[in-house]
Amino acid sequence: VADVITSPRNDTIRAVARLATVKGRRATGHILIEGPNLFEAAVKAGLVFDTVLATQLDRTTQQRAATAGIEVTTVTDEVLAAASDVVNPRSPVASAERPAPVAVPPRNIVVLHGVADPGNAGTIIRTAAAFGWAVASTPDSVDLWSPKTLRAGAGYHFTVPIAAIDDIASLAATHTVLATVPRGGGVTFATDRPVALLVGSEAHGLPASAVAAADALLTIPMPGDVESLGVAVAAGIALHMVTNAT
Amino acid sequence: VADVITSPRNDTIRAVARLATVKGRRATGHILIEGPNLFEAAVKAGLVFDTVLATQLDRTTQQRAATAGIEVTTVTDEVLAAASDVVNPRSPVASAERPAPVAVPPRNIVVLHGVADPGNAGTIIRTAAAFGWAVASTPDSVDLWSPKTLRAGAGYHFTVPIAAIDDIASLAATHTVLATVPRGGGVTFATDRPVALLVGSEAHGLPASAVAAADALLTIPMPGDVESLGVAVAAGIALHMVTNAT
Repeated sequence: VADVITSPRNDTIRAVARLATVKGRRATGHILIEGPNLFEAAVKAGLVFDTVLATQLDRTTQQRAATAGIEVTTVTDEVLAAASDVVNPRSPVASAERPAPVAVPPRNIVVLHGVADPGNAGTIIRTAAAFGWAVASTPDSVDLWSPKTLRAGAGYHFTVPIAAIDDIASLAATHTVLATVPRGGGVTFATDRPVALLVGSEAHGLPASAVAAADALLTIPMPGDVESLGVAVAAGIALHMVTNAT
Repeated sequence: VADVITSPRNDTIRAVARLATVKGRRATGHILIEGPNLFEAAVKAGLVFDTVLATQLDRTTQQRAATAGIEVTTVTDEVLAAASDVVNPRSPVASAERPAPVAVPPRNIVVLHGVADPGNAGTIIRTAAAFGWAVASTPDSVDLWSPKTLRAGAGYHFTVPIAAIDDIASLAATHTVLATVPRGGGVTFATDRPVALLVGSEAHGLPASAVAAADALLTIPMPGDVESLGVAVAAGIALHMVTNAT
């Protein structure tokens, strides 16, 4: 018989709630998985769960967890909300071990170099999945494992290879490094190596040092206002341009 | 000497705050303009302001308002927050007349046909600006003039022609209607007319009737999981494909 937690001040609930913060995730190596879709994706990917909380009515989740041998703790709506990042969470709200970063793989990879918005970061991970790319981020980018980024990633965090790199210089040995710039770059280029595509911050784009270090520059041709694309859309178009270049 | 409002329950403040809701905007024909960047874009576009609230304005914004003959009402932080859609608003928070919808122009146009997320809708407007397209939406799409959509639109609501259409059938007389579909469409097509590109809902894509009525179907080639692109990214890639097709 599963436990039932009825107090939002229970230690287990507090521990899960702390995973909404960068500090909480760094201290534990765990991440917050919220809602049936992310939970399904995480279970399929074999994540190791620590705590899975659900209200009583959620049969699909109970069955999915049972099949995977994951224990579910029944909680009240109030407790579920206390554990969650959102006001009206859907079951389950869970704590799982964060997947270990992979080494930079010998394939096309999009590199978040200063991306600050969690929604943009998650959207880029989702786009990378669609085009069969890997993802890397530098320390000046937003944490890729926040609840907001996981939501925007739509479950693809668990299928896309995600690397953490200290410095983009390390990419030069294995990849053709391509910097996305608002003007002055090309639309096609020839390479027989995988591409590392650098995308920068919402406010400032890529740092000049990253542009200078790149093997080539990519610019999306825009007849309208040239500074008006959001970084997630720009990354999407750039991945398409590189992937589907003829 | 400008008025000073210190009570969040002041009628003017309540009237501005109501513009965060669809109901409030429909009842008045006004929209909520928040923060210096949207305010600058709206002033440049010649919007007619009803109320402009600010705690403190940088000189540029003061001059901008004065030059445009716009009166600014000084308020407390508490009052500004009461008028605003966000918890910590930046000045100014303003009410302005919503720009009138334009007739569908004889140029490329992206048609939001069921887009539900305000952030996606605003991002698509921003992308349309970058590629020099117009925007239209059908009644089943989210209101394009909510504070969230305006934020994601980054000021381009005021430069992009925005039409409202009851039915996509009306486009056939003037445009080549192109439906974005996850599979089965082409990547190139020939037309000597402007394109009306239909994009659908986050959950369900385009309705079958819209796909059936289209002149041609567009599919973004994706080596990865074919159902994994967000609608704002998919629209961005599709606008690029149509605009920059060789």
